[in-house]
Formats: sequence, C-alpha cells, structure tokens
Amino acid sequence: MGVNWVRAGSVYILLLGLILGAFLGSCNGGVSSRYARGNDISADMPLDSDVFALPVGYNAPQQVHITQGDHEGRGVIVSWVTPEEPGSNEVVYWAENSETKYSSLGTVVTYKYYNYSSPYIHHCTITNLEFDTKYFYEIGTGDVTRQFWFTTPPAVGPDVPYTFGLIGDLGQTFDSNRTLAHYESNPKGQAVLFVGDLSYADAYPLHDNNRWDSWARFVERSVAYQPWIWSAGNHEIDFLPEYGEGEPFKPYTHRYYVPYEASGSTSPLWYSIKRASAYIIVMSSYSAYGMYTPQYKWLISELPKVNRTETPWLIVVMHCPLYSTYTHHYMEGETMRVMFEKYFVQYKVDVVFSGHVHAYERTERISNIAYNIENGLCTPKYDGSAPVYITIGDGGNQEGLLYEMVDPQPLYSAFREPSYGHATFEIKNRTHAYYAWHRNQDGYAVEADSLWFHNLYWNSTQISSTASM
Amino acid sequence: MGVNWVRAGSVYILLLGLILGAFLGSCNGGVSSRYARGNDISADMPLDSDVFALPVGYNAPQQVHITQGDHEGRGVIVSWVTPEEPGSNEVVYWAENSETKYSSLGTVVTYKYYNYSSPYIHHCTITNLEFDTKYFYEIGTGDVTRQFWFTTPPAVGPDVPYTFGLIGDLGQTFDSNRTLAHYESNPKGQAVLFVGDLSYADAYPLHDNNRWDSWARFVERSVAYQPWIWSAGNHEIDFLPEYGEGEPFKPYTHRYYVPYEASGSTSPLWYSIKRASAYIIVMSSYSAYGMYTPQYKWLISELPKVNRTETPWLIVVMHCPLYSTYTHHYMEGETMRVMFEKYFVQYKVDVVFSGHVHAYERTERISNIAYNIENGLCTPKYDGSAPVYITIGDGGNQEGLLYEMVDPQPLYSAFREPSYGHATFEIKNRTHAYYAWHRNQDGYAVEADSLWFHNLYWNSTQISSTASM
Repeated sequence: MGVNWVRAGSVYILLLGLILGAFLGSCNGGVSSRYARGNDISADMPLDSDVFALPVGYNAPQQVHITQGDHEGRGVIVSWVTPEEPGSNEVVYWAENSETKYSSLGTVVTYKYYNYSSPYIHHCTITNLEFDTKYFYEIGTGDVTRQFWFTTPPAVGPDVPYTFGLIGDLGQTFDSNRTLAHYESNPKGQAVLFVGDLSYADAYPLHDNNRWDSWARFVERSVAYQPWIWSAGNHEIDFLPEYGEGEPFKPYTHRYYVPYEASGSTSPLWYSIKRASAYIIVMSSYSAYGMYTPQYKWLISELPKVNRTETPWLIVVMHCPLYSTYTHHYMEGETMRVMFEKYFVQYKVDVVFSGHVHAYERTERISNIAYNIENGLCTPKYDGSAPVYITIGDGGNQEGLLYEMVDPQPLYSAFREPSYGHATFEIKNRTHAYYAWHRNQDGYAVEADSLWFHNLYWNSTQISSTASM
Repeated sequence: MGVNWVRAGSVYILLLGLILGAFLGSCNGGVSSRYARGNDISADMPLDSDVFALPVGYNAPQQVHITQGDHEGRGVIVSWVTPEEPGSNEVVYWAENSETKYSSLGTVVTYKYYNYSSPYIHHCTITNLEFDTKYFYEIGTGDVTRQFWFTTPPAVGPDVPYTFGLIGDLGQTFDSNRTLAHYESNPKGQAVLFVGDLSYADAYPLHDNNRWDSWARFVERSVAYQPWIWSAGNHEIDFLPEYGEGEPFKPYTHRYYVPYEASGSTSPLWYSIKRASAYIIVMSSYSAYGMYTPQYKWLISELPKVNRTETPWLIVVMHCPLYSTYTHHYMEGETMRVMFEKYFVQYKVDVVFSGHVHAYERTERISNIAYNIENGLCTPKYDGSAPVYITIGDGGNQEGLLYEMVDPQPLYSAFREPSYGHATFEIKNRTHAYYAWHRNQDGYAVEADSLWFHNLYWNSTQISSTASM
C-alpha cells in the first residue's frame, strides 16, 4: 500500500509514546508523508477554458447541480441557472425502463451582490422517487433542453453498501480540475460529501460572483449526475460590508439549496440526511454554535435521534477541522472542539470529515474531553469511542498546498501529507467500511492512505486499524 | 470592609498555592462568601403591580429608555412605546438653562411574535449634544406628553472621572425590584453597563412578549434618565421555531436599538462606544464568533483602534463569563475563551463584565493562553496583562440564585458569593478606578467586595489589589 515515506522522527515518537503511556493498542507512530511535487502553485483556469464552456443556445440551462432533497433519499433538489431570462422552472424526469414521465415545478431566485446581478437560479425539488433507481431528467425547453441522469440511493437500511466521495476546498484551478477528473475516474463514488469552500470567488476583487457561475459550470459534469452534499466553508461567507454586503453566505445560500427543513433545522447551514446506511450531519463552522443557539439546540436534539440499527454509520461534516497538525489554521477548530467533542464521543460518531487546511491528514481515534480547567487534563488520549478526524481540504484551489507541520508529529496524527486528492468512504455493511485517500499524482486505484473502519456502534470492541500498517 | 466569611478551606488553597507556585504577588487565597439568605426563590411581580403601571391617558408613551446614540457620547437614542396608535415619533429636547428647544424625528417599528403583536415601538436618535450637560426631553403629544431628563457624559478624555453601574440578569421579580431600587439609592452610577438577560419573557408560555412590555415599564424609572448600555444574553434569543419564530433576537433587536453602525459593526449584537475615559466593547455570546465571521473580524479590527491615551479604560461586556467557578453553567464560556482570551491579554483589557451565572464572582488577573494541544499547559496562571473577570448575573430574576460552587475554590477565583446586587466601576483618572459590589441586603454604602483597579496600560507595573484584603 501507499505508505512510503515514514518520517525518521517516528523513532522519537515511539519513545515519547512509551514515556507518556498515553496511547494504547493501535498507536505505533504517525506518518508524515512528504510527496515532492513541483513548485506549481496552482493558478485558476482562465474563464475561456473548456471546463467553463457555456452550453449552446439562447438561454440554455447551465450550472446544473443536484443534491439530496429530503431526509431519506427519495428526493432530489435539481438546481440550474438560465442567463438571459427566467425561462421554465420545470424538471421532467422518468425512471429508466419506464414510459411514464413526470414533471415538477420549481422556483426561480436572483440576488444582487454589489455591482453583480445574478442570473436566474432555479431550484426544483423532486420527491417520492423510487429507491435504487436510475432516473433521467430534462431541464430547459425546445432547442436548449438538456438531459442528465442520476441514481437514487438504496432504501435506508443497516447493511446497505454505499460509497461516498470526499472532496473539499476545490476552487477552479488546473489542480481542481485534476482532482475532479481523478474522482470521476474512480468508479466507486455514488455521492460526494463536500466539506466546504466551493468556488473561491471571494479571492477576486469585489468577490467577483462570475466565478461562482464559472465554478458551477466546471463541476456540472459530476454534480449534475450524482448528488453533492453541501457544507459551507469560510469562502462561502462572502462578507464585504464596506460594499454593502454584510449578509453572510448570500451567494452560497441563493445558489445551493439543501433539505434542511426535513431535519428540523432552521438554517441551510446545518442539517442532516440519511442515505443508505449512513446518517450525515452537516454543521456550520461559521455560524453561532454556543449553548442555546439554534445550531447547538438542533444538534443536541438531533444526535439522540440517530437510530444506529437503521443507519449504523454516523458521519459529521464541518469545514474547520477539530484536529489538525499543520501550522496554518492551527487550532482554529478549538472553539468548536471544546463545545462539541464530548457529544461526538458520547454518541460514537464514526468519523468527522473536514476541509479548510489545504492538505491531507487522518487522526487516530482520540479525544480530549477530560479537561475542567482545574485538573490539567488537556492532552488528547486514545479513545475507542471517539471519531477519526479526517482533513481533506486538498481539492486544489488557488491558495496552494500547505507544507508546514507541527514537528514532531503529535501522537494523535496518524497520517499526513500535503498532496491534492480526494477520498472514498465505502460502506460494506453495518460493521465495516473501507476508507481510502487517492492522490492526484497516482492512478485512481492507488491508495496513499487507507483504513478499515470498524463501526463504533456495532463493532466497538475492535479498534479501527490502518490497513497499510 | 465587607469580606466577612472567609472559607475554612482557604488554608488548603494556600498550601496548594505554595506547591504549584502558579500564582504570584496578589494571590493569597480566594474568598467564598456564603450569605445565609432566606429560602425565598424570587417570584415575578404580578402584572398589576405598581412597578408595571401604565401612564395615564390615551396612547401615552411608556417603556421609555435611553442608550448612547453615537460613538463618542454626544448622541442619545430615545426609545418608547405607544400602545394604541403610532402617534408622534418626535422628541423635543433642550439643555437646562437654555431657552432653545430642539426636536428630532425618529421612526416607528412593530413586530409580530407568533400570536403577539407588538405595540408601536419608537426610536429616535438625538445627535450633536453638548458634553457634560443636563438635557430635558419630551415625548408624546398634548395631554399625554411626558418629560424626562438625562445628563450627557463629559467629553472623551483620559482623566475624566466617570462611574458605570453594573447590572445583569435582572428579570422582573421582587428581587429585581430590590436590585433596581438599590442601584437607584447609590448616587454614583451615571450609566449602566447591562450584561444581558433583560426581561425573561421567554420563561412564559410562547415567550409571552407582554413581559417584554412590562419589563420596560418596570425599569423606565432608571433607564429613562440614564443610558443603559445593552448587551444580549441567552434570554434575548427568543428562539421558538416550532411556532414559526426561528429568527434569533427578534423582540430584543426590535425593542433595543444600539449605535452599532457608529463602530463599523454590522449587527446590533456587537459594537463599541467611548464614554468619558472608557472604551466599552460589547460582544455577543450567542452569535457566530469563529474566525472569519463578522463578529470576529469586527473585534480583531476594533481592538487595535483603541487609543489608550484617549480612553485608558478598556472594558469588555459579554453575557457568558469566560471564567466562573459556579457549577451551573460551568465552562459554558470555554468556546469563547479559547477564541478571544489571547486578544484580551494582548490588548490589555482591564476588565470583562459578564452575567449569566446568577451569583457574584470576581477573579484574579489570570490567563490560560499557553495551550497548544501538545504542551499540556492548560492551567490558569496569574498574568499582570490579563483582565479581571467579573460575573454579576445577580440582578434577581425568577430563576433564583446559584449556590453550588467548585470546591475547593480555584486559585483564580478571588471572591464569590451567591447574593443579589449590583456593582459600580468608578473611574478616577487614567491610572485608578474603584470597583465595588453592593449586595441588596446591605445599605448602598456597604461594599461586600471591592477592588482598586490599576489601569493595565498606564499602570501596568502595579497589580490590581483587593481593597479589603
């Protein structure tokens, strides 16, 4: 397997491990893999690149994207943009091998952002689909009708195999394109858990929202065909009060609808879905989360609702990692960690996926929840009930990769490497899931890091082990 | 002075202090004062109590309250309510000893909260007042005209004496009334820093907003005559999504206007003012404060702007304390502490006033900012650049006092006592301020806890000492 660059300093870590006695069982020193990639800090693809090409025809629908549209997986939200006039809000759809066509009518919204006026943004929620079925759908009318397809997930159940892709901090550079192509070449992924930071339009003067449009055209080739489950990163905030744009998340929330009401949430920035054998909780690193706040109250009532007999795999997605040993953004997640980590342990969250840090990292199962100010107990410890924390902010945006790490590698960091890539989380049944990280520089079959997950609810006596160690 | 109940356990604290060597200079063991008050958990005053009395006459203005209306203290926001019809938005005002009358025109707003419709809420900002001048003002028309007065603060300057009152978690019980009466009997207070939790209307079915109205009538006798500087507590959130009320802070933000735009804030929940020799920063414990969020960005740009040569006293107000050694609400402020404490130390904030915990506590000057996950340095230490943290959530609401404390008293806790009361922060000049806590059970001249503050910017070589120890 792909663990090729074992850091010399791991000897010291082993020694330290013996002295501290802090880690048990699985801990045998982390890996800091240093792939020597060229000095090619990624540039955004020019707007006239093929990947941003406009569909042919007057007012042709563009920027097509789908996401789950209900709590169970029988709904799909289809979103798209028309540039010239509102046009039709209708989605026509039919099951493969069926003569019957259905149609649903959506809504159209626009927004202004300083001197930018958005095109017509359509959102249409299709409901009551059959599970595990391929559907074709059409949007637009006449000559500019465009056809796509998606496959609904199997009915929710404890042993349903299902594979999620993991992509984060994607941007729209040449590297972003490599990441997307690499994910497309990996045939396993059925839906993407997107860990935040989509377009990086805010890197442009006045947060040029045309880059929101170009990004959505870029990723259409994937997200028109399989749902991406959205979470918001800091680059979705688009806060520009000096130009009158003081409403956080305005472009993002107008463009990306999610089924938040289906899980009793009051905001599209935090919500949950069930999909196959997984329960996905999306949280917002950049909204209020203190005690008594809407997000806090929602999460606290949500966690006890998760029925692990129905959905054994409990996955949390949030942009800012709670644990990261890269020096940039170091400890930015502390404010959220001290708030929520104890609940993740209590409710045996299997894995927390984050982005934000432009690199890759996987932790051991650890927790740091014993602290009470007086007792001095503030060191992460191995904890068989704690999540694995995976940072996968390596989609490939224009800010480039991060190479500086905390040295020596802390014991709780199992594997880290600054390379672009994506990952897959392949649920086999209620007890086992296979996780693999795929670097862009390798063929999709190569797994630079991988792990067999033993479900924390169904298989809690076994610890998750690093497949390659 | 008033420190009468020294806990026997302080011997152990002294021993522990010698062993740990963690505290220097001023630290000689904290005081846990246990006043034996009767078992009279406070009940709300009935709506027909005199304190809630309606003013006489059709559509007479009621619920009159003022707050600072600009950044420097030459502005006042006058707010009031008319019950039957909008009536006039005008405020007529004149300086004492002046023939010239001025008038300003405000606005009127209403809101709905489930099945409650608010009366007409008027807000009028008066600007360009003379400093250090008594003004009379009138609102209402004809027979129901009502007259009040206020005194503007002296011009901003480093050695301007000024006294702030401190009140928090007030509610509308018989104890609330005792606290307010006690504050009124103390002639020193010129403006109140209110540390959040105003009416406790949310304790009633459907958050009965009539209790917002009654509370404003109750406190009018003080706040119509001197500005109360508002901060929002958890009881201002009024989050009731199951009844369609999912917009946090709706009643509060409609009723209590603050001059947030004058300090470049984009939300009434965080802002700053200068007043005399003090710079007051109001923060929101229940809004987003993670990195990149509007509140975070505002605070980070705000702190370097504070010119201690102009306003030596830097005071932060936030509802939830960063340090509290009562067991209820214990460590709720951690999520905000790990985010902001380092900045409070870096910029030498003199004092942080909070509420939330229904009791009284004062800390030593301490910080706990050395932690980096790996190093285990997570014990609060004496820090001559750190604020004193004062919890004064003892206004007297219907939830009653909190008696359970962390035992033994942590070294960083200087004085704590579950009694109702208020405090005063009496700035003498750029180097000295006298702080005193006044319990309701004593005459106003009695100070149950007190401290001479040595300004951190101008007098940083001297530590603040407990006056009574």
